[in-house]
Amino acid sequence: MRTFRLVIACPDGVGIVAKVSNFLASHNGWITEASHHSDDQSGWFFMRHEIRADSLPFGIEAFREAFAPIAEEFSMVWRITDTAQKKRVVLMASRESHCLADLLHRWHSDELDCEIACVISNHDDLRSMVEWHGIPYYHVPVDPKDKEPAFAEVSRLVKQHEAEVVVLARYMQILPPDLCKEYAGQVINIHHSFLPSFVGAKPYHQASLRGVKLIGATCHYVTEELDAGPIIEQDVVRVSHSDSIEDMVRFGRDVEKMVLARGLRYHLEDRVLVHGNKTVVF
Amino acid sequence: MRTFRLVIACPDGVGIVAKVSNFLASHNGWITEASHHSDDQSGWFFMRHEIRADSLPFGIEAFREAFAPIAEEFSMVWRITDTAQKKRVVLMASRESHCLADLLHRWHSDELDCEIACVISNHDDLRSMVEWHGIPYYHVPVDPKDKEPAFAEVSRLVKQHEAEVVVLARYMQILPPDLCKEYAGQVINIHHSFLPSFVGAKPYHQASLRGVKLIGATCHYVTEELDAGPIIEQDVVRVSHSDSIEDMVRFGRDVEKMVLARGLRYHLEDRVLVHGNKTVVF
Amino acid sequence: MRTFRLVIACPDGVGIVAKVSNFLASHNGWITEASHHSDDQSGWFFMRHEIRADSLPFGIEAFREAFAPIAEEFSMVWRITDTAQKKRVVLMASRESHCLADLLHRWHSDELDCEIACVISNHDDLRSMVEWHGIPYYHVPVDPKDKEPAFAEVSRLVKQHEAEVVVLARYMQILPPDLCKEYAGQVINIHHSFLPSFVGAKPYHQASLRGVKLIGATCHYVTEELDAGPIIEQDVVRVSHSDSIEDMVRFGRDVEKMVLARGLRYHLEDRVLVHGNKTVVF
Amino acid sequence: MRTFRLVIACPDGVGIVAKVSNFLASHNGWITEASHHSDDQSGWFFMRHEIRADSLPFGIEAFREAFAPIAEEFSMVWRITDTAQKKRVVLMASRESHCLADLLHRWHSDELDCEIACVISNHDDLRSMVEWHGIPYYHVPVDPKDKEPAFAEVSRLVKQHEAEVVVLARYMQILPPDLCKEYAGQVINIHHSFLPSFVGAKPYHQASLRGVKLIGATCHYVTEELDAGPIIEQDVVRVSHSDSIEDMVRFGRDVEKMVLARGLRYHLEDRVLVHGNKTVVF
Repeated sequence: MRTFRLVIACPDGVGIVAKVSNFLASHNGWITEASHHSDDQSGWFFMRHEIRADSLPFGIEAFREAFAPIAEEFSMVWRITDTAQKKRVVLMASRESHCLADLLHRWHSDELDCEIACVISNHDDLRSMVEWHGIPYYHVPVDPKDKEPAFAEVSRLVKQHEAEVVVLARYMQILPPDLCKEYAGQVINIHHSFLPSFVGAKPYHQASLRGVKLIGATCHYVTEELDAGPIIEQDVVRVSHSDSIEDMVRFGRDVEKMVLARGLRYHLEDRVLVHGNKTVVF
Repeated sequence: MRTFRLVIACPDGVGIVAKVSNFLASHNGWITEASHHSDDQSGWFFMRHEIRADSLPFGIEAFREAFAPIAEEFSMVWRITDTAQKKRVVLMASRESHCLADLLHRWHSDELDCEIACVISNHDDLRSMVEWHGIPYYHVPVDPKDKEPAFAEVSRLVKQHEAEVVVLARYMQILPPDLCKEYAGQVINIHHSFLPSFVGAKPYHQASLRGVKLIGATCHYVTEELDAGPIIEQDVVRVSHSDSIEDMVRFGRDVEKMVLARGLRYHLEDRVLVHGNKTVVF
Repeated sequence: MRTFRLVIACPDGVGIVAKVSNFLASHNGWITEASHHSDDQSGWFFMRHEIRADSLPFGIEAFREAFAPIAEEFSMVWRITDTAQKKRVVLMASRESHCLADLLHRWHSDELDCEIACVISNHDDLRSMVEWHGIPYYHVPVDPKDKEPAFAEVSRLVKQHEAEVVVLARYMQILPPDLCKEYAGQVINIHHSFLPSFVGAKPYHQASLRGVKLIGATCHYVTEELDAGPIIEQDVVRVSHSDSIEDMVRFGRDVEKMVLARGLRYHLEDRVLVHGNKTVVF
Repeated sequence: MRTFRLVIACPDGVGIVAKVSNFLASHNGWITEASHHSDDQSGWFFMRHEIRADSLPFGIEAFREAFAPIAEEFSMVWRITDTAQKKRVVLMASRESHCLADLLHRWHSDELDCEIACVISNHDDLRSMVEWHGIPYYHVPVDPKDKEPAFAEVSRLVKQHEAEVVVLARYMQILPPDLCKEYAGQVINIHHSFLPSFVGAKPYHQASLRGVKLIGATCHYVTEELDAGPIIEQDVVRVSHSDSIEDMVRFGRDVEKMVLARGLRYHLEDRVLVHGNKTVVF
């Protein structure tokens, strides 16, 4: 069923819901899902509506025009999206395949509603798996002494493929600040620990050294500060003294792929609203 | 902060949210929380609003009158409650203290927003603990050969104490059908298994015999059919071959008390809407 | 690191551990993992040792001979396996790919220590995915009016491929009793509910009707009685009123594949001991 | 059933299990539970046996003498305890009652196998609750300008009551280094976050600022370095944007009390072996 998704953030106040729901009702809009959140600390209000496209008398452009005055009145940060227009996703990976294979399978079996424009990797290992899915694979090696040319090429490919979302599916390179800025709120990473614990490299080794009883994974938007962007989703799995670092890595892979898949899904369904360094996930 | 809670269920259709939010906005109502749910299968719509009482120009009676026409227009099943009027709760227990002690502590430390009118038990074991909290304790023994007089007395006490909620906190007796009917949607039970598995007595023994790897607890409304009422909340805990039935019972106690406390809280906050044999828990 | 796995079940008594560990120590056996369990109810004792193969002065056949007198003395049901001899696995599937794809990926990335002899399916849908992994695919359609020829062919293939383990990775057919008997303790199924709830078909519909707040999956050995065999592993995921049956099916897929992968891993590592209708999982 | 618990840590090697189980078997010791762990990284071996006291021909002192030569041979760090001698526990609290009430209830209902010698608090709020349980309550206020006299008094009380375990059940003061040293491995704290995240004060505020999707609690041994001692147990609970800091605090209380109760139980049952800054929890 084709729907429009109306996603709004604005300073809180009386009458916002009334105004928006009046607007929708006056055009006979059939709301299939509605979510609201008032944030006490920031004084902001967030809402998301999912509306059957066939219940409305107009398309998305006309919707935008008609709604603009209300948006202006309440100083809304807002967007409306159409499920008929699948988001274009670029996946980035290195050598480890678990997250990539998981996302490709979900896409292949119609669970992930998006177009996968291409896969970019700094290694050539996963080419065959990707190409079996009929998806272009770009091998862009990163020279540790001069990373700039590689990231220029990455940037070019992302643009060429008109990506709206970039997913770092265990891409073991740190994106340069300008790319982070340009695609703020559009680059999703999976970090293999329960952030803010164990920022940076080898988190399972850190976790093992500290003797923790749970290990986790965190899906977050990439910002210029390493592993510090807004968190979309997290989960943990229980470990014990009997688990080696290799066991932790193995358990970790399962949490990583589940958390990344959920986080990406929320993003694709326009369920994630970023405000400051926090997210509202409807 | 004092709020009114407006809880609505009605056949789904266009314009319900608009009508309700218009009504609230026209009276300057400050919505602190709003939840909606459209149930595809039944074609019903459910909503719950929490509104700051001091933002409205009238009290709860005037609200009821003013809102009645809208309720009628959309054939709403609805209620409005005032957090200033704490619900009166009667707790029932037998010999085991874990659920009762947990609820009493939550109430004593102001976590559970209700009045505990009294505790009724078919045993006298827990009297001292209850009375330490300043709550009346009634010992109503149940004669297995003739249970009627006991339940008549229970019924009398529940009425006398003007109970709006009855909580079976490991009360090991089956309530008679007429009591179940009279207090439909108001009697909350904790069953010590993951329903619908292991209905009836000794569920941990049943679970152990079946060799399950998780045991659970289910908080549900009591209906005439044993352990088959609408489910409010459930949870599980992991067990293994190394756990004896005694271990399961011990783990179970923790799940039972947590699940019952959450279920009761949802009920007290008017978050649970029953429709048929299912619940919406906002 | 190559290890031998010594797995023992016998009536409990004094001196078993001493006898076994003496035997191992007298041959300089380096134990890397040891697990014990005394079952009070049945009076049986279970143990599993993992021993470095290179620490022993003999191979697995000589081990068997040397250990036999001890096994006889304590009436042991026992086996010893060699990690150098990978178990041969036959996977069976229907149309749904999530469990099969997950297992194939784990095998492909060296996480599952086994040989996948072939995949048998009653549909031809998943052939290309399987063959990309270099694994033979057999399409054995099942005629609903006469299933016998199909299961004869299945049986023949399983034998031809010398399968030690058969995994029903969402194979939507019920195996005939004789096959269940012949491969008792070797056929692993994933049931898409938290058994013993919702035995049989369409468990998510049953779960939705009952309004449960958690859905689960159960990995178990197949026996003649449907969905009643010894449970190896279970897990659940939280659902709410806002989840449709389609959502439940989607969440369910993730639990199913995780639970099956864990259960199969336990089996391949000789961690599962069946006693009566229950398992010890070391 | 009275048991002895034999707990051993020593450098790993061949023949340890054989020697220990021979010793037990030669004295006809009936082992009810046995656990082993080889730690690859440190090269240490850990084991714990639970033995029926009535199966042995001698008492704990004779056991100690008889076992000493084996302990010496393998350079064991070891202890043997007798379940007939309950450990003496001193509980410390401040104003918040949830952990204290939970532990007291578990003790009162015979779930926690220990003697609670007394409760020490820097506030007088919880006196009545404690005294209802028949346990002495000491109010030792801490002067923020000069904490020494208070901790001298605490130290004196702990000694006077011959405490073997000190539990900081939300005691909001930092113990002085000399006390931490003197009672190394005997002081158990509950920290209200998933350590190592959010060390120090107000972890829920820190968690809310960071926008995490899970909050946790950590039970650990107290060392001189704040919140950095060996971790015994951890758990988490899911939160979302809709949860205020007050909600997090409330959810947190439930995790805290569960994690502390589990951690303390493991300690009382001699299941926790500390090695370096990590624990083995059998």
